[in-house]
Amino acid sequence: MAKKEEFVQSITKQSEDFSRWYIDVIVKADLIDYAPVRGCVVFKPDGYELWEACQRELDRRFKETGHRNAYFPLFIPESFFMKEKEHVEGFNPELPWVTEVGDEKLEERLAVRPTSETMVGHMYSQWIHSYRDLPLLINQWANVVRWEKRTLPFLRTSEFLWQEGHTAHATAEEALEETLRMLDVYVDFVETELAIPVFRGQKTPSEKFPGAVATYSIEAIMRDGKAVQAGTSHYMGQNFARSFNIQFLDRDNQRKFAYTTSWGLSTRIIGAMIMVHGDDRGLQIPPRIAPTQVIVVPIGPPKARERVVNAADEVVARLRKVGLRVRADAREDLSPGWKFNEYEMRGVPLRLELGPRDLDAGQAVLVRRDNGEKLAVALSDIEERATGLLEEIQKSMFERARAFREEHAKQAASLDDLRQAVREEHSFALAGWCGKDECEAKIKEETGATSRNIPFAPPAHPERCVVCNSPAAHVVWFGRAY
Amino acid sequence: MAKKEEFVQSITKQSEDFSRWYIDVIVKADLIDYAPVRGCVVFKPDGYELWEACQRELDRRFKETGHRNAYFPLFIPESFFMKEKEHVEGFNPELPWVTEVGDEKLEERLAVRPTSETMVGHMYSQWIHSYRDLPLLINQWANVVRWEKRTLPFLRTSEFLWQEGHTAHATAEEALEETLRMLDVYVDFVETELAIPVFRGQKTPSEKFPGAVATYSIEAIMRDGKAVQAGTSHYMGQNFARSFNIQFLDRDNQRKFAYTTSWGLSTRIIGAMIMVHGDDRGLQIPPRIAPTQVIVVPIGPPKARERVVNAADEVVARLRKVGLRVRADAREDLSPGWKFNEYEMRGVPLRLELGPRDLDAGQAVLVRRDNGEKLAVALSDIEERATGLLEEIQKSMFERARAFREEHAKQAASLDDLRQAVREEHSFALAGWCGKDECEAKIKEETGATSRNIPFAPPAHPERCVVCNSPAAHVVWFGRAY
Repeated sequence: MAKKEEFVQSITKQSEDFSRWYIDVIVKADLIDYAPVRGCVVFKPDGYELWEACQRELDRRFKETGHRNAYFPLFIPESFFMKEKEHVEGFNPELPWVTEVGDEKLEERLAVRPTSETMVGHMYSQWIHSYRDLPLLINQWANVVRWEKRTLPFLRTSEFLWQEGHTAHATAEEALEETLRMLDVYVDFVETELAIPVFRGQKTPSEKFPGAVATYSIEAIMRDGKAVQAGTSHYMGQNFARSFNIQFLDRDNQRKFAYTTSWGLSTRIIGAMIMVHGDDRGLQIPPRIAPTQVIVVPIGPPKARERVVNAADEVVARLRKVGLRVRADAREDLSPGWKFNEYEMRGVPLRLELGPRDLDAGQAVLVRRDNGEKLAVALSDIEERATGLLEEIQKSMFERARAFREEHAKQAASLDDLRQAVREEHSFALAGWCGKDECEAKIKEETGATSRNIPFAPPAHPERCVVCNSPAAHVVWFGRAY
Repeated sequence: MAKKEEFVQSITKQSEDFSRWYIDVIVKADLIDYAPVRGCVVFKPDGYELWEACQRELDRRFKETGHRNAYFPLFIPESFFMKEKEHVEGFNPELPWVTEVGDEKLEERLAVRPTSETMVGHMYSQWIHSYRDLPLLINQWANVVRWEKRTLPFLRTSEFLWQEGHTAHATAEEALEETLRMLDVYVDFVETELAIPVFRGQKTPSEKFPGAVATYSIEAIMRDGKAVQAGTSHYMGQNFARSFNIQFLDRDNQRKFAYTTSWGLSTRIIGAMIMVHGDDRGLQIPPRIAPTQVIVVPIGPPKARERVVNAADEVVARLRKVGLRVRADAREDLSPGWKFNEYEMRGVPLRLELGPRDLDAGQAVLVRRDNGEKLAVALSDIEERATGLLEEIQKSMFERARAFREEHAKQAASLDDLRQAVREEHSFALAGWCGKDECEAKIKEETGATSRNIPFAPPAHPERCVVCNSPAAHVVWFGRAY
């Protein structure tokens, strides 16, 4: 029988080596395995299930905001990329090219899509004729490929899964409104479901999407103080419409170029969730997204087994009836202690222990993953108490993450301050920036931090650029990024 | 305002040219568009929605039978294909190869997956160690690519969407049982949800999956008498386990090769649904799978508009409350007649017309897409009546398709019979077959028909091979295939 210590030994402590902790947890919890293709991974069932939960919650929000799903081809002809200069330059080094099929060479190389603006742009130019065809609001769930030299499961893999929304509008105002609406949808999803507080804002020009007029992002801070860009929404203006000739006849009988947007969120969000909530015992999955919200563990001596297992099944059925995702682990060859560790490591938010003495007392013991609190609860109230506790856990996970973020969001009046904040204090740093690329580059060079975004509502308003001391054009969050 | 005739004109009659009818319907109903990459299409929102409905119903069945979803890489190293000789020979001509990334040549070519047995086999060899790890029951939802010279939307495209199940078992019996269980899951899905009756049986050796020991299929007959293979389930024996070294330590402490299966169903099923149920007015979508089950059309003069539109909204809300997928089309610039044609063409199973006189009488008019029947129904009973009618439509669509199949399933005692059946009578033909590849090839050459499958329960037992007259080893369905 496996022992408690095995677990503790097998996961590196966060304080010791956060990156190793991350890999240990992912492997131990069976989320991902490395594949025999450079930069690629396999999403194992427990990892993929987290993505399915994200899909469910995001897809619902997309449909509620009027979007419909479609599917565009994986392959993009080389000539399409050439139509948007900034776009091709941005993606070219990462593109895998199909050059032959069977034994035949292709006349034109086909890129495996890194994103679908060009293909969608071409199709939209066929579909959009009149203002009546607008807005066109489409989302795609798909795999995309951007070749990576260094792999980090979930966060940086050559192939990853994502959704990419692509919309076209008659006016700049409507397109910009859509761009920001979808950023808000991401905020709502990430904060409500994943309990990850984020900073929303606009990317600096050097960090924006190749071909976009403006890119907006949500940025989250991990437990090691590093940043993960959790979702982006791009306002393209008429750039792609001009490159792909997306024109429409407006109400005033004039032909005009449409205004387009795109927005994407990928499997990297799962990496962020792990790094925001996980601790030395393993994963912590927020209840709203958890594939298993309650794990029921029957305990007690062999002679009580039938009784407790039957009672456990009954509790499972009752909790399922009120919509909870719950299962029992009644395996005989593993000890309760082993199971407690196992499901703590896997991040199940709530454990329900049930033994013969509990049954005699008409109760069960509920144990919270987030703070370890143990509560004896009357079986007659089990539905209400479990549901209530899951809500409390969700809330307290978000609050804890928010408090962490407050503590790790510093203000920097100088480059030294900034370096100190991001390197010593494992924090984000808010700084004034003049708007020049050189100053941004210097910050990266000197501190390792990149600009995260220009917040919509900065908590302070420094007046000078942290590098050149000229007047600040923007207030920017800087952080070391994954 | 568009006229009724426009529709009738724009769809070719089935009797005139079935293939053109098919393309007309798909384009007119906005399901698919051709993409600027050879053999590739775009699944537009109305087409993709049908696939989402299939995914929902299949995924539920997979999970109920103990399977979990995972995701494996898109790219497969060339050396992997080489490990299974029959497999590589079967797929090689259709494989797109990635040979370079950015400006760099790859050391080993990567195939874009046509199916994932090789990649899954490699991973399973890492994951499976003991009999405790078996059975391993995994499904993947993914895009796959098999280069096609002639494109037929849904039925034959270079890239398509599908699910592929991959399982590993400790014994041949269990693996074979799984293979047939999943064939039954397909039958249940296709017959229950899509109202398509199918013949289940085993593929002849020349038609089996490259690398399999045995392939089982379900075969459906289209309204033009041609066959569509609607799903396949493969028993691999130990073939892939030997090629990829999937070994486990059994209870008896012996290392053994596992037995594997795979099974797949793709977006081509949507093409089959269209060709089985569609008629000269357009699509007919079975209620259980229809994204819109009831379309509510408010009618009447402008002065009654507000009243009928409000009543329509109320009906929509009431029907949604009982779980129906329903919406109203209250657009002012289109006539009721135009809408009637539009939604008939789009295959919405039930139309609900609501005018001021209906409201005065406390009723609505329900019109069935399948047989055109019109029923005045009391608004007070609308939930029950609409639900009941949708069930009836589902049932009657299946019965009609089954009757069609009975009429188009002939028996052939000679090659002439067989030719007559498949070419003149647009039917399947049941014939005896000696088991020799030459005789099967001759049938194809002489009649254009291929073997569909060897039915588990043939309706007759011819004793002689239809070609060489030697004793029949098998009874086989033949048909001209898409």
